[in-house]
Amino acid sequence: MPPALPPVLDRLDADLDAALARLFALMRIASISTDGAYRADCDAAADWLVRDLASIGVRAEKRATPGHPMVVGHIDGPKGAPHVLFYGHYDVQPVDPLDLWARDPFDPVIEDTPAGKVIRGRGASDDKGQLMTFVEACRAWIAVHGQLPLRVSFLFEGEEESGSPSLVPFLTENADDLRADLALICDTGLFDADTPAITTRLRGLLGEEITLTGPDRDLHSGSYGGAAINPIRVLARIIAGLHDDKGRVTVPGFYDGVTEVAPEIAAQWDGLGFDADRFLGAVGLSHPAGEAGRSVLEAIWARPTCEVNGIQGGYTGAGFKTVLPSKAHAKISFRLVGTQDPQKIRAAFRAQVRAALPPDCRVEFHDHGAAPAAQMATDHPAFEAARQALGAEWPRPAAFVGAGGSIPIAGYFKDILGMDSMLIGFANADDQIHSPNEKYNLSSFQRGIRSWARVLAAISG
Amino acid sequence: MPPALPPVLDRLDADLDAALARLFALMRIASISTDGAYRADCDAAADWLVRDLASIGVRAEKRATPGHPMVVGHIDGPKGAPHVLFYGHYDVQPVDPLDLWARDPFDPVIEDTPAGKVIRGRGASDDKGQLMTFVEACRAWIAVHGQLPLRVSFLFEGEEESGSPSLVPFLTENADDLRADLALICDTGLFDADTPAITTRLRGLLGEEITLTGPDRDLHSGSYGGAAINPIRVLARIIAGLHDDKGRVTVPGFYDGVTEVAPEIAAQWDGLGFDADRFLGAVGLSHPAGEAGRSVLEAIWARPTCEVNGIQGGYTGAGFKTVLPSKAHAKISFRLVGTQDPQKIRAAFRAQVRAALPPDCRVEFHDHGAAPAAQMATDHPAFEAARQALGAEWPRPAAFVGAGGSIPIAGYFKDILGMDSMLIGFANADDQIHSPNEKYNLSSFQRGIRSWARVLAAISG
Repeated sequence: MPPALPPVLDRLDADLDAALARLFALMRIASISTDGAYRADCDAAADWLVRDLASIGVRAEKRATPGHPMVVGHIDGPKGAPHVLFYGHYDVQPVDPLDLWARDPFDPVIEDTPAGKVIRGRGASDDKGQLMTFVEACRAWIAVHGQLPLRVSFLFEGEEESGSPSLVPFLTENADDLRADLALICDTGLFDADTPAITTRLRGLLGEEITLTGPDRDLHSGSYGGAAINPIRVLARIIAGLHDDKGRVTVPGFYDGVTEVAPEIAAQWDGLGFDADRFLGAVGLSHPAGEAGRSVLEAIWARPTCEVNGIQGGYTGAGFKTVLPSKAHAKISFRLVGTQDPQKIRAAFRAQVRAALPPDCRVEFHDHGAAPAAQMATDHPAFEAARQALGAEWPRPAAFVGAGGSIPIAGYFKDILGMDSMLIGFANADDQIHSPNEKYNLSSFQRGIRSWARVLAAISG
Repeated sequence: MPPALPPVLDRLDADLDAALARLFALMRIASISTDGAYRADCDAAADWLVRDLASIGVRAEKRATPGHPMVVGHIDGPKGAPHVLFYGHYDVQPVDPLDLWARDPFDPVIEDTPAGKVIRGRGASDDKGQLMTFVEACRAWIAVHGQLPLRVSFLFEGEEESGSPSLVPFLTENADDLRADLALICDTGLFDADTPAITTRLRGLLGEEITLTGPDRDLHSGSYGGAAINPIRVLARIIAGLHDDKGRVTVPGFYDGVTEVAPEIAAQWDGLGFDADRFLGAVGLSHPAGEAGRSVLEAIWARPTCEVNGIQGGYTGAGFKTVLPSKAHAKISFRLVGTQDPQKIRAAFRAQVRAALPPDCRVEFHDHGAAPAAQMATDHPAFEAARQALGAEWPRPAAFVGAGGSIPIAGYFKDILGMDSMLIGFANADDQIHSPNEKYNLSSFQRGIRSWARVLAAISG
């Protein structure tokens, strides 16, 4: 352990109550980005972060976007030290259905649970609790040593939960101000409660909505059934045709750029002791439903998918209505890996849909965004240094893992700022992010702060 | 023309404005039977009919059922005259999507259109406008002659648009009270605007709702996509498998009891001058979409179908939500012909769905009713008498036609009360029943009333 570190860790532990008070102050701000009614709250959360960063000596400011503001900050480190950009987001998910919350989502509290103490409230984990682990680690370094061991810039976004519409233009316009040697992102999880993780691969995401129209109005299925085309039936055939009998996606060229997991990584994953039965059993399932011949871990970390996220057509209310509908809709998304090209896949998907249309049926497509997969350059020396630092804090060694979800920011940092990202986070699978009664383990918060203090030391060398 | 008829026809024409006022009063009652929120409105519509029948001397009363009430009435005719039972329904279809209506569906109005005056509003055609044509004919007969030319009973149902759950028990319990020599039903259409029709074959209807469940909760499609089963995908495969490439239904045994149209009937239909291009073109279509090798008229009058009337699963709101849903639903109906057995088909359909379920997917079925097809005994002398009477009122002779829709009541009258039904109605294909902006041609209403006055005379002999 570098000699500078122990007093920082002591300071962090001594300051825990004050750190929690700061986190709670931020969590009390209802910064729901997707709902315009909370615009002032999003602004207030940005202001709070600017003040808090300024209080530890960071040159921080709020910057306007067409949506919610960004918070950008800079603080120097020792001459010649590396420069990192830390990213987090201050916006949170909506809280509906509110009646499923045991208490006010914006009145955070520490609760005792059978599994230990937890911080309860919206944003406890995603992402206010996580981003504050880094800020608190910086605060302690500065309090003890007067400065950080490396140069740090901060970027806090307020639109992560609503598709980040302002992010790409903002990164492009502020590229020189934000570029660093490496990005640090705290928006991911532990592998399990004892095993820290550095997420080195993230699936990309491509969203499409299709609307099929047959007759120009809803018809009576008695009067027209057998004569008029039914767009629900056409849509069902299209969806059924998106996968073959082995569970592989049939879109032409879909697997271009999908590579097999390297044997050494596969071996590392095998060693994690992932319990597929437990993973599926937790949601009432017992059979892996993806591509034949792929393990569950491989399926969610390293294989692309096509899922239908929503479908609607005809009469869906109570009772029965013998309508032969004019329209049918589906929201379809693709999770991408490797170097799959979202725009090529979008074009091939649309061509496949068009080719499947019978006469008298037309389609409209709606683009719901696209982000390629991200795979980190784990040969960057900071990755191994951080892995060692995390292993020193937690009961088990850190692992390089994948993530099934998409964190487009890592791809944007690579594409726009030319910099790799190291994703370290301390969330647990049961944190109920995006759901009622979100929580963050108190141990995640405390060990998370200590972890960042260690990582800052490790990667400053 | 029998001498009693001309003053009745004169009276009808003189009373048209008052007849419209009565119809509008009934149409203003939002008697949507399929939605429990309109229970009081259904009751109010029944009360209105009881009062209106009583005002012309019918012994009428509202009778409770487990669902919406029935209205039953009786009025005597000359000694020895035949006894007919007239049937209509006072309930109407739901009105969603409400934003596609040009005006309040329950604020009826007369509109001038290029094709003539129309009565606009929910129920204008189906079935309030139609049932009132018969009531108004009776009113005029009684006003002019003090009595009807034959004995008439009335049965008005309030659950026709929601599968008639109370009908069979009610008919069974009240068989002696309702049995007559012949049933008259006014819930069908003209062949075209100039050609009246007596509907002699009706397709049956079988309604099923299926709910598939995969995971026991909605999942994040990033975290679980590729590992967890998606019930929307399973549902799409099941629906896609319900038809073969020739448009035939794949349910085993489905075509048992389906007979080919007799050559003389086929020849009669060929002679009607049915314009398939115009029929499809009226709803924005140009290609028959049913079974290969069948004409459009045959497809809708004499062939069975399977249609999806509604489908829903996952996130269907604005924007995108990367959910992997727990449940997916579909409402599926079968139109039946000949002697197809609804219960056998229901069982075979359910077996086919169950056989298509992968592991971890379960299904719940909901029975939305069943009625076999009906074929009338056109050798009953009233049929030819009515055909002549209709021909005297309209520009072209009446035809014996088929109907694609289901009017299960005709089958129930035959099975439970042992009586044949004569279906005469004045709706047009463009009435937009079951759709926004329903209308009934004013000429249908006026000539419909006159037609019933003639038919009553013709079949009383």
